[in-house]
Amino acid sequence: MDSSITPHLACPRSRPRRIADDYAPPYPAWSARIDPAIGQVVMASYGVQGRESGDVAAALAHVRALRATLDADVRHVDLARYVDEAGYDTLVLQPYWTDPEAFRRWEARADVAALLAAETGLGHFREILTPTVERLETLYSTEDEMEGLGRALERRSPPVQEHAYWGSARDRFPIAQTDALEPAGQLGFAADGAGRVTVRGHDNIAIIRSGQDWGPTGGEERRLYLAEIEPVLRAGMDFLRDRGGECGCYLNRYMRIVDMDGAPQEKSFGWSYWRSLGDMENWSEAHPSHLAIFGTFMRIVQQLNFDLKLRLWHEVYVVTPDQQLYDYRNCHPDTGFLKQMPR
Amino acid sequence: MDSSITPHLACPRSRPRRIADDYAPPYPAWSARIDPAIGQVVMASYGVQGRESGDVAAALAHVRALRATLDADVRHVDLARYVDEAGYDTLVLQPYWTDPEAFRRWEARADVAALLAAETGLGHFREILTPTVERLETLYSTEDEMEGLGRALERRSPPVQEHAYWGSARDRFPIAQTDALEPAGQLGFAADGAGRVTVRGHDNIAIIRSGQDWGPTGGEERRLYLAEIEPVLRAGMDFLRDRGGECGCYLNRYMRIVDMDGAPQEKSFGWSYWRSLGDMENWSEAHPSHLAIFGTFMRIVQQLNFDLKLRLWHEVYVVTPDQQLYDYRNCHPDTGFLKQMPR
Repeated sequence: MDSSITPHLACPRSRPRRIADDYAPPYPAWSARIDPAIGQVVMASYGVQGRESGDVAAALAHVRALRATLDADVRHVDLARYVDEAGYDTLVLQPYWTDPEAFRRWEARADVAALLAAETGLGHFREILTPTVERLETLYSTEDEMEGLGRALERRSPPVQEHAYWGSARDRFPIAQTDALEPAGQLGFAADGAGRVTVRGHDNIAIIRSGQDWGPTGGEERRLYLAEIEPVLRAGMDFLRDRGGECGCYLNRYMRIVDMDGAPQEKSFGWSYWRSLGDMENWSEAHPSHLAIFGTFMRIVQQLNFDLKLRLWHEVYVVTPDQQLYDYRNCHPDTGFLKQMPR
Repeated sequence: MDSSITPHLACPRSRPRRIADDYAPPYPAWSARIDPAIGQVVMASYGVQGRESGDVAAALAHVRALRATLDADVRHVDLARYVDEAGYDTLVLQPYWTDPEAFRRWEARADVAALLAAETGLGHFREILTPTVERLETLYSTEDEMEGLGRALERRSPPVQEHAYWGSARDRFPIAQTDALEPAGQLGFAADGAGRVTVRGHDNIAIIRSGQDWGPTGGEERRLYLAEIEPVLRAGMDFLRDRGGECGCYLNRYMRIVDMDGAPQEKSFGWSYWRSLGDMENWSEAHPSHLAIFGTFMRIVQQLNFDLKLRLWHEVYVVTPDQQLYDYRNCHPDTGFLKQMPR
């Protein structure tokens, strides 16, 4: 059976997988394959926030202008929206590159730099992840389509062995073949006194973007997703947003994918940053708020006789300090990593 | 923090626990403590089955007669009832001893032997487990009272460290400090041609008795237990009963505790036999039917702000071939282990 780890990234393991070699998962799942020519990817997030009437239109105009500057080097881009814990309506543009140089060239362009520095009266943030390819893993529940990073990477694996058991995310990371991915260091904060704060990430911060696409569902499945699964998912997302610190979660955003006019699509995702992959695993395996989500989903999977159209997917990164860049400009003090800043 | 393993049974581990030494469970649980004078316990089950009108009264008369022979050496006894997959109403008397000699003396008594051999027109079975103390573990969710084996052992631990994570049952077994508890061998069957079948268990069969006591619940908690948790629990129990073979489960009975008049108490338990502890772990960790139970419970735990009166408990055994004795007399062919007999 095929491994989730792209063959050229496999190496002798000093850290064993949780499964025996003959383990067969009870249902299929797929991972993105990584072209050997790709050494590092970029998952960039440009956020704009406001809470006055009219701010959404201004934020949408800003992300559209930014979107318009993206060139053919960009492999995929999403736009997503949510109202955060302080009541700020927030739009986030998320382009992906498979070449960090192309990303840097784009950000350095005068028109882009001007947009990224523009004084709009709104809050702006950048959260830029540039993991090398051994520091990411992806999983897709259906064969028909990938999302996010998978779209950027384009190629899909055969059904993979490392899924449907606790600890499988770790087993899908190429680097976890030989590295425990323990966290080290602390968050650092530098404020310029003029509304801009730069956050320095520590070693092995883990990030997950975990998505749901209920567009293909219908009938009873759609009803059950919206009436029974989504509310439990939302409660878990709210827990992580408001009390995630108890579990090592720095921040969480439960976002809705929107089109470039701001119209909501039938797609959402949770997007969280963790002190370590271990903390993320612990929440997933053991916390009532996640077990409730997972168990509710499993109850309904059985009710529907395992015949689901719902599409689930995620991408996870574990990054070194120099593979992260976070800055916040005129943002409210609970925005993203700012919530962690000593006051 | 205290270990679930009774101190005199602790030894240097060749097999590490799944947790770090500083792991702190998110909520408390307790185990029974084992008196150093106790080396082996007996958990005996005497079943009587029938499906004609009048059989229940006859079965009840039989178990009452058997109950009346139990002497002061017996440490605890339960009576439970269920209607099995073939529609047979079944009563099971479950006495516990903490001294196998006392059990043998009792079974050898002429009046007891006569009762156990009596021709009643009903089906009868014995399932006798005699694990040495390093081959059992217990867990109780509340501090007020223990059940089953815990009542027989009498003493309770302080809150224990090894719980609330996947794999914690294994970590509570004294023998698992040094033994992987892998299964070996096959079930054996010997029929005498006169309606009696003896089943020989193989090495490291795992048995769980996992109970629920909703007597102390009230109001919204009681409503949620009966309307939302119990149906999902029942569906999982039915899955194990009907399709458990897919997961290494030989047999499962979802039973109701009754009093000596046969009146149902507000207590139930699932009682299953597995090819190995590993198979039991896999079902628990990964199978939709168990994740649905666990996740539904966790959803409601949160809904009730972790303030529950519901009492949950279990006892698990992993036994050698000579610590098991199963025989079936005039039972239908899907009774207990008979379901596994080649036909």
